[in-house]
Amino acid sequence: MTSQLTNRRLVFAYRPEGKPSPDVFGVVTDPVPSPAEGQILVRNLLVSIDPYLRLKMYDRRSYTPPLKIGEQIPGRGIAQVIESKAEGFKPGDLVACYGAWQEYAVVKAKAAQKIDTSIASEEHWLGTLGMTGRTAYTGLLDIGKPKQGDTLVVSGAAGAVGSLVGQIGKIFGCRVVGIAGTDEKCSVVVDEFGFDTCINYRAADFREQLAASLPNGCDIYFDNVGGEIAQAVISHSNDFARVPVCGLISQYNGQRAADPAALDEFMRLILSRRLTIRGFIVSDYDGQYPEFETEVAKWLKSGSVKQRHYIRHGFDQIAPAFIDLLSGENTGKTMVRLADAA
Amino acid sequence: MTSQLTNRRLVFAYRPEGKPSPDVFGVVTDPVPSPAEGQILVRNLLVSIDPYLRLKMYDRRSYTPPLKIGEQIPGRGIAQVIESKAEGFKPGDLVACYGAWQEYAVVKAKAAQKIDTSIASEEHWLGTLGMTGRTAYTGLLDIGKPKQGDTLVVSGAAGAVGSLVGQIGKIFGCRVVGIAGTDEKCSVVVDEFGFDTCINYRAADFREQLAASLPNGCDIYFDNVGGEIAQAVISHSNDFARVPVCGLISQYNGQRAADPAALDEFMRLILSRRLTIRGFIVSDYDGQYPEFETEVAKWLKSGSVKQRHYIRHGFDQIAPAFIDLLSGENTGKTMVRLADAA
Repeated sequence: MTSQLTNRRLVFAYRPEGKPSPDVFGVVTDPVPSPAEGQILVRNLLVSIDPYLRLKMYDRRSYTPPLKIGEQIPGRGIAQVIESKAEGFKPGDLVACYGAWQEYAVVKAKAAQKIDTSIASEEHWLGTLGMTGRTAYTGLLDIGKPKQGDTLVVSGAAGAVGSLVGQIGKIFGCRVVGIAGTDEKCSVVVDEFGFDTCINYRAADFREQLAASLPNGCDIYFDNVGGEIAQAVISHSNDFARVPVCGLISQYNGQRAADPAALDEFMRLILSRRLTIRGFIVSDYDGQYPEFETEVAKWLKSGSVKQRHYIRHGFDQIAPAFIDLLSGENTGKTMVRLADAA
Repeated sequence: MTSQLTNRRLVFAYRPEGKPSPDVFGVVTDPVPSPAEGQILVRNLLVSIDPYLRLKMYDRRSYTPPLKIGEQIPGRGIAQVIESKAEGFKPGDLVACYGAWQEYAVVKAKAAQKIDTSIASEEHWLGTLGMTGRTAYTGLLDIGKPKQGDTLVVSGAAGAVGSLVGQIGKIFGCRVVGIAGTDEKCSVVVDEFGFDTCINYRAADFREQLAASLPNGCDIYFDNVGGEIAQAVISHSNDFARVPVCGLISQYNGQRAADPAALDEFMRLILSRRLTIRGFIVSDYDGQYPEFETEVAKWLKSGSVKQRHYIRHGFDQIAPAFIDLLSGENTGKTMVRLADAA
């Protein structure tokens, strides 16, 4: 019955140099397959747009294998069940799953999580209570180890993960300094997300402002960007500071810093101040932090955590939404709505 | 009675650029002070020569304050009590203490540790059972977290700390790859310290040899040297590899790497392979790992841990021993014997 449905899906068209353009994604149209036993057929309603995808476009080992040319673009989303061959799922159910960047998907029921929109909206299930929130929560708690009175610096502070990290840091009693790319974003970070202050890294006196904002040094630097911003912040580290490395968006398009002494200086700081620098991705914590959802849902309800959603509409907007995300054009969690729940 | 004793001691003469020469230490001769209540007067028998001192010669914040011009050169040693104003210590007792680079010292009894030479020699109390051994043991266990089957790479493998790290790694079931600066040292590392293999970093094909020695990548890199060697090893890291940063001897004399992309590449590896890079110094672990002494004494007795001692004789040899240590001239733990126990 459903097999006459036509599905549009994005595939990897070619390996880009530097900043990609939207045609890095090709569109393939083909019939929707039927679900096999244990599978469900879903319609994607909302897809998450995440910068890590850029790393998968390089032909080198990363935490997931590189994309192959022609390969389906993976991605997580909120979707609605159309047909179920799995116990516990029925048409109409809303789920969070890795449905990829396409209109319809057949996924294993075991890998789909039913969501309750009376607790939070679809957008929050994709962002705050989804991988974005988990990334912020686990990285900050497990590696950052925030304590009352710590100074926490967050780059990408207006972004999906960064804005949550700062707000969770406030809940744990940290003084929180954000770094973002425009004055407007900095205002949002302070006024809406409640950071103590936020610095525009494009300001001519960025380093002076950063120094002035850290009279007691930095105890935790949550790094979403890498590059010169990371260097600048880490130079203010206190002894035993922790640096969760969550993203390196400044490097994703292949930009390179130009300071030959940078690594030596970095190693010197690591040793002399006994820093902990640790990379992580959210899937490293599968099954850990079981309290995450209830805890964050509570904060969301009480208003102590907020998230901005940057939403585009329509399948054609997936590619440009991704390109803009890499350029730092957005504030909050980027997603594309493909359809509304039936 | 003792106050007519004359003491020679080394002080910091000037702040060196690059590799220091022996005259960076000045000699001051003055009378030995008498111990006050709670203090002991000791004669230094054996002083430990450690590369970290070079870092204290820079005029910048490190884990201890920089040396001031004219300041007494600090250092740990094995000493014999001459006069005691403290309970529990009597003339003739042998102690380990921070007696500085001088012939006699007045130290707080509380900061002196009585040693039992029936368990281990004075040399071992200064090295294997002293700060050197503690550094190897705590850094490897706490940060490296060695497991059966892990591949452990150790730079400075012929040195005091590195040789112990590798031997302890073998006890924990690791495959151990050493890196040292001469073929002769590499032979000692394999034949005497029992590493599985050792690579001369001065070899023209060092990088090829390193790659060939790591068919299963690297799980722990115990870094004593920093610089290009650290970069090369870390590029072979497996997911979740651990890098205890213990020393950066390649950088101590102010050498600089010349690869502007090095830090970006480093950050990329940290994220994509979820590395943990952590600096430490042994004093961070004061009071922790109480089993250290008995454990290592047992290994020493059974022969599963060995240490080479590179010993010079006489007060005048302290300065050249330190300079040679920075040049990588020595194998094993460097120390200078000033006197024998009476």
